[in-house]
Amino acid sequence: MASSPTIYRSSTTAPVNIAVVKYWGKRDTVLNLPTNSSLSVTLSQGDLRAHTTATCSESYSPQPDSLVLNGQPEDIQASKRTLACLLSLRSLRAKLESADSSLPKLSSYPLRIASKNNFPTAAGLASSAAGFAALVRAIADLYELPHTPEQLSLIARQGSGSACRSLMGGYVAWRAGIQEDGSDSMAQEVAPASHWPEMRALILVVSAEKKAISSTAGMQVTVKTSDLFKSRVEQTVPKHMTLMEQAIRERDFQLFAEVTMRDSNSFHAVCRDSWPPIDYLNDVSLAACRVVEAINGDGKYYCAYTFDAGPNPVIYYLEGAAAKVEGTLRVLLHHVEGWPPSHAGFTQPLAESGKELTKAERTLAAGISRVICSRVGGAPERTSEHLL
Amino acid sequence: MASSPTIYRSSTTAPVNIAVVKYWGKRDTVLNLPTNSSLSVTLSQGDLRAHTTATCSESYSPQPDSLVLNGQPEDIQASKRTLACLLSLRSLRAKLESADSSLPKLSSYPLRIASKNNFPTAAGLASSAAGFAALVRAIADLYELPHTPEQLSLIARQGSGSACRSLMGGYVAWRAGIQEDGSDSMAQEVAPASHWPEMRALILVVSAEKKAISSTAGMQVTVKTSDLFKSRVEQTVPKHMTLMEQAIRERDFQLFAEVTMRDSNSFHAVCRDSWPPIDYLNDVSLAACRVVEAINGDGKYYCAYTFDAGPNPVIYYLEGAAAKVEGTLRVLLHHVEGWPPSHAGFTQPLAESGKELTKAERTLAAGISRVICSRVGGAPERTSEHLL
Repeated sequence: MASSPTIYRSSTTAPVNIAVVKYWGKRDTVLNLPTNSSLSVTLSQGDLRAHTTATCSESYSPQPDSLVLNGQPEDIQASKRTLACLLSLRSLRAKLESADSSLPKLSSYPLRIASKNNFPTAAGLASSAAGFAALVRAIADLYELPHTPEQLSLIARQGSGSACRSLMGGYVAWRAGIQEDGSDSMAQEVAPASHWPEMRALILVVSAEKKAISSTAGMQVTVKTSDLFKSRVEQTVPKHMTLMEQAIRERDFQLFAEVTMRDSNSFHAVCRDSWPPIDYLNDVSLAACRVVEAINGDGKYYCAYTFDAGPNPVIYYLEGAAAKVEGTLRVLLHHVEGWPPSHAGFTQPLAESGKELTKAERTLAAGISRVICSRVGGAPERTSEHLL
Repeated sequence: MASSPTIYRSSTTAPVNIAVVKYWGKRDTVLNLPTNSSLSVTLSQGDLRAHTTATCSESYSPQPDSLVLNGQPEDIQASKRTLACLLSLRSLRAKLESADSSLPKLSSYPLRIASKNNFPTAAGLASSAAGFAALVRAIADLYELPHTPEQLSLIARQGSGSACRSLMGGYVAWRAGIQEDGSDSMAQEVAPASHWPEMRALILVVSAEKKAISSTAGMQVTVKTSDLFKSRVEQTVPKHMTLMEQAIRERDFQLFAEVTMRDSNSFHAVCRDSWPPIDYLNDVSLAACRVVEAINGDGKYYCAYTFDAGPNPVIYYLEGAAAKVEGTLRVLLHHVEGWPPSHAGFTQPLAESGKELTKAERTLAAGISRVICSRVGGAPERTSEHLL
């Protein structure tokens, strides 16, 4: 009796990242090459993660590759981006196999992949970055590819631009590159999470709204129509990249905070300058800016806001300012879900002073449905928890 | 018994103007020289006007010049801008007097000036443009200056930049000029009101809000801090000026509407890109944009929004589209003051269809406290109604 063919299996989790210098605009829409470099903070997988199991086996033949995402079968053939990632990974595996004939021919076996996110779609977080990073990392592990995260980031980038930054932990730059084939458009670790582990991120989820224009479509409108966009690409972003890398290197939160807010504003400025205009921010978003400004006061930055292609504020702050930042917001948003169990050390200035809420505070309190407390975290992690 | 000295007197009304290519940024803050040209529509003085009476007399000596604005005595000596206008006008009069010794020496007499606006401060309209235009026009008439409106616009500009455009009717450009002394930074009529008399403007007054940063302070923040501003000045505005003059020349409302909205968006984009960021628009403003977009639909522009340094939408449309534009807005905002007596020809699509309001429509309806219906109008007019 012949033994049944082996099923090869590998599972990984991958993190969400939130950019502090934003990716907005493609110079090549097929290869996902950006018009400018960007930089993000990788968030802890203890809080937010995509979890993917990749398996392959000769026994799966003649069935085609399959992918189940959050319990729903996906049509891989309809996703050029997924196909591009699978093709690149198989090609790297095939090279290993042709160099060493003792290796099993995994590249020729059908894949069965399952993936799920631990955060609700309603959270409005772009799941594609964590999802494609997990997909690429899981298959690279399955195939025992010796490639570095930088090299794998070239593949993940083709799945979703910002996915390339989710292959590393800590503070990660995506270098735009200049090559036409995209061979130098990859992610690079600026500093590991351990370099500046005190960084926290508080995601405020705005109550469900009609979905605005997708970022993929929106950024192309900006590239085509905004006069101001060229300045952002040529002047603003290079300056912000330099300053942000300095801020991280020197653990300078004052610089980090100002550049984070200014880059977000610059990004949403070119959105507004697009035609038709793109407004991702709503009154709740603007109220969050005012509340952050009020917490900061005039002299010093305790926290910084940033917004992706949607209305949800993400607020960065250091652990040392948690009592001030998280404490203030927790009192204001005590009624929404997502807060960790309370602990000592939080001042509650609003409740204590019994002062009347400002208009911005009222708007924020009424417009947020949940919070997600997170912090800087590490790279994708192999796990023995398999979904298949 | 000696006859008592003559009191010389002249009165004028001057119009409000609403820019469709915006003035934002000074290259010289003393001379009020702008970083870019701008273009506005002069609104009818039947709807909105400043009314000024200028008098002078030898008998006023030795009292100094005086100005009463909306019933309140103003400290002329504290207003460098007013002083600059009075000095320039006296200087022109003095030249006439030295060339013709038969002229009374009005330039040496104290001035008594009274001015009032027919629109409430709460309307949030910049009153300085109409006010300085009326001041300059009234004194120029009092002094019987032979100077053209273009020449007088050099003086009004020193009072308030946009005041130079209120010295003419119809469609008016303010040429930025290149001279350091500002001698070529003046207003110029692009077309009189009679060239395109169908242009209407509907001002939606947003319920009282805390005053944002003043335009004088705000524009200097933008000049100093916005990376994107240079693109607006060097590329966007020159393009918009050319297109807008073409739109007016050819009475092309499609082009007029698109450039009007894009220029307003570009202006508010550079405000957002400033540091600290400037947000003149609130959720009511953005709701007005969405409602305008809904009225326009996809194929054709029936109306165009524009916003100055504040949240109030101004909506331009042609008389032929009044049923559609004014009709729609009148149903939505039937509860606010300012509408003229109803007349036939208005469709009432919202009421007729009984459809549910969109979120934008609800926000707009709840956030507007009054409307002002106006239209393109003429230059300042001499009047025999004297305030003194």
